[in-house]
Amino acid sequence: MPPQTANALHPAPAIADDVRSVHEGGKLEVNSTAPVRNRDDLALVYTPGVAQVCAAIHDQPSLARSLTIKSNSVAVVSDGSAVLGLGDIGPEAAMPVMEGKALLLKQLAGVDGYPICLDERNPDRIVDIVAAIAPGFGGINLEDISAPRCFEVEGKLRKRVNIPVFHDDQHGTAIVVLAALRNATRLVGKTVGPALRVVVQGIGAAGVAVSELLLAAGVTDVVGVDRDGIVTPRRSTARDPIFRRLGKRTNPRQLTGTVDTALDGADVFIGVSAGNTLTAAQLRRMAPGAIVFAMANPVPEIAPEIARRHAAVVATGRSDEPNQINNVLCFPGLFRGLLDVGATRVTTTTKLAAATAIAGLIGDGELSAEHVIPSPFDSRVVPAVARAVAETARREGAVAG
Amino acid sequence: MPPQTANALHPAPAIADDVRSVHEGGKLEVNSTAPVRNRDDLALVYTPGVAQVCAAIHDQPSLARSLTIKSNSVAVVSDGSAVLGLGDIGPEAAMPVMEGKALLLKQLAGVDGYPICLDERNPDRIVDIVAAIAPGFGGINLEDISAPRCFEVEGKLRKRVNIPVFHDDQHGTAIVVLAALRNATRLVGKTVGPALRVVVQGIGAAGVAVSELLLAAGVTDVVGVDRDGIVTPRRSTARDPIFRRLGKRTNPRQLTGTVDTALDGADVFIGVSAGNTLTAAQLRRMAPGAIVFAMANPVPEIAPEIARRHAAVVATGRSDEPNQINNVLCFPGLFRGLLDVGATRVTTTTKLAAATAIAGLIGDGELSAEHVIPSPFDSRVVPAVARAVAETARREGAVAG
Repeated sequence: MPPQTANALHPAPAIADDVRSVHEGGKLEVNSTAPVRNRDDLALVYTPGVAQVCAAIHDQPSLARSLTIKSNSVAVVSDGSAVLGLGDIGPEAAMPVMEGKALLLKQLAGVDGYPICLDERNPDRIVDIVAAIAPGFGGINLEDISAPRCFEVEGKLRKRVNIPVFHDDQHGTAIVVLAALRNATRLVGKTVGPALRVVVQGIGAAGVAVSELLLAAGVTDVVGVDRDGIVTPRRSTARDPIFRRLGKRTNPRQLTGTVDTALDGADVFIGVSAGNTLTAAQLRRMAPGAIVFAMANPVPEIAPEIARRHAAVVATGRSDEPNQINNVLCFPGLFRGLLDVGATRVTTTTKLAAATAIAGLIGDGELSAEHVIPSPFDSRVVPAVARAVAETARREGAVAG
Repeated sequence: MPPQTANALHPAPAIADDVRSVHEGGKLEVNSTAPVRNRDDLALVYTPGVAQVCAAIHDQPSLARSLTIKSNSVAVVSDGSAVLGLGDIGPEAAMPVMEGKALLLKQLAGVDGYPICLDERNPDRIVDIVAAIAPGFGGINLEDISAPRCFEVEGKLRKRVNIPVFHDDQHGTAIVVLAALRNATRLVGKTVGPALRVVVQGIGAAGVAVSELLLAAGVTDVVGVDRDGIVTPRRSTARDPIFRRLGKRTNPRQLTGTVDTALDGADVFIGVSAGNTLTAAQLRRMAPGAIVFAMANPVPEIAPEIARRHAAVVATGRSDEPNQINNVLCFPGLFRGLLDVGATRVTTTTKLAAATAIAGLIGDGELSAEHVIPSPFDSRVVPAVARAVAETARREGAVAG
């Protein structure tokens, strides 16, 4: 790491020089698409010309989807309560991440993202705030909001607004996991379906969404595990409604006990919990051709080099390892597709279609234990996801009239 | 006007082709300032590098002012309740105006403005919403919010957030009016001070702010007039607190009656009301060297060519007449100056300094009855306003620590 900058007034925070340099002044700018060089230009983009556009939208509100930035814009909304591995750092400290997401939306998919970091923690008030600012946006990307509040916020917001609402920590992760799992199972001669036994460790935002999307994809034997052990209907009464629902829909063999029991004969381990919790001995309990997605960040549930000795396919969240499960594979193309058709919501079918599109980019010739998922810099990813999402939204009628 | 486009499904709104063309897809885009071409770039602008910046801001919150877009960004906030001459058209129809303001902020002053149009009318809830989104912004430009709600929203919001809040319809208008008045009085050998008699017609957002800034500038004889006649302390009890305060601070000669009485011997008429309400006969009541600012839009209180027969200086809000009182002369440079010093509020002294800076650009050699105020395209305006605002904010200690 480069030397820290010294400052007599403030203790120097540990920011590497190259990181600091790209963050000075923020990572985004708002530019205009029309020049204003003289009074004639001003009369077109501002008064008096603009009044014609305002009046037209007032007469026919759907015109806002073509004559304003609503057509191409996404609010990247966080309350800063669950940021990266840093946890609850507040709205101002969350800004660099939200700016990063907006930056990726633009560079990868041409979507205009804008960060909205909220000094508010009450879920109902967050819903009110985001619903109030929704008129100017074509979509809402919720980000880094802690569980279980994130479930409540997303659920209520989806009912309040007529634009797509997508909590990336939940559904982005779930979509990319499903994509990787489709290819990993293909490689080991298994199928994403009723015969597959899947253990999901960590029942937060990502764990719940992964479990539910796997159920939607036809997997029936999903067993959730958290620090208190296997999720059962009996245990579920103590927790929030989402947890209760999961308790009822998963664990069909009614297992109880620890992760060891869950892993006995399991085909797939999906870790979205804390790092360094899984041992080689535990992996040996799994069925032959085991698939291990150890996605805790920055330290995976088990070191990938150890996992690879016991599992047929290993994926992590790390960029310096093969098979990076990275949300960047989904959200840019997803919002591109949603905006392209003026979508009003993100359905489960849409999420399944996005996963299939990502998985489909790895042909049989390319598929290997170290390559079950495309690179975030594979230029085919965004168009493929966008096309699948747009077609599905249109087919389902989840678009503005 | 070019032919309207026909559409079998929707009645065609009257948007001229050239106006429509600059509005297609909106007038703004969000761009990134750092390229992401590969994994190394991604590691700087996003995980893992971004975590260093988040952690540093969490340790030392003032770093958000230099390492995020807060350093250069302004939320342009409206509820769409008083848009241009169109009135209450709602948040989506207000977007083109807010996009236009953001566009001007960027092109004229390099400020990143972003439109936030609110589906909310309750003043307290608007305050809560804007306070909640404030962490990501360096300033708030309130726009086109109807009176008297605008006074309440601005007043409460100023107390809630530690960034400048500026309702442009009020203070932008007041600043440019004061600038024009300084030069107009100079031309006719009068002074902005206790000897000047000023009539303000229209006691909405602009009328109240103009009256209060003139009082702050040393004018004592301000007489407000609305559709019910001259504003007096007695009449004021029926109205909101702002109106009551104005009733007490203005009208020192305790006039009563109609605008005719107010105009007897007046030096200045400032119209910020409805159009076409003032007659030549009424202007003849004014003192010699009369100054008439007829700013109703799009139709002034009196036709400028008639006003010029009876007044020494005539200004309007129209771009096709001399002496256009245009808020664009103020808000870009004002926010440039505020952001340059990390200002926490906009003080009255700052507003007075902005007016003086604008007025000071017209030298004695340039000053004429048709040229009391610079053009919005005079490249000296933004730097002059920004410098005056920054210096004043810093001198007053209205900046972040």
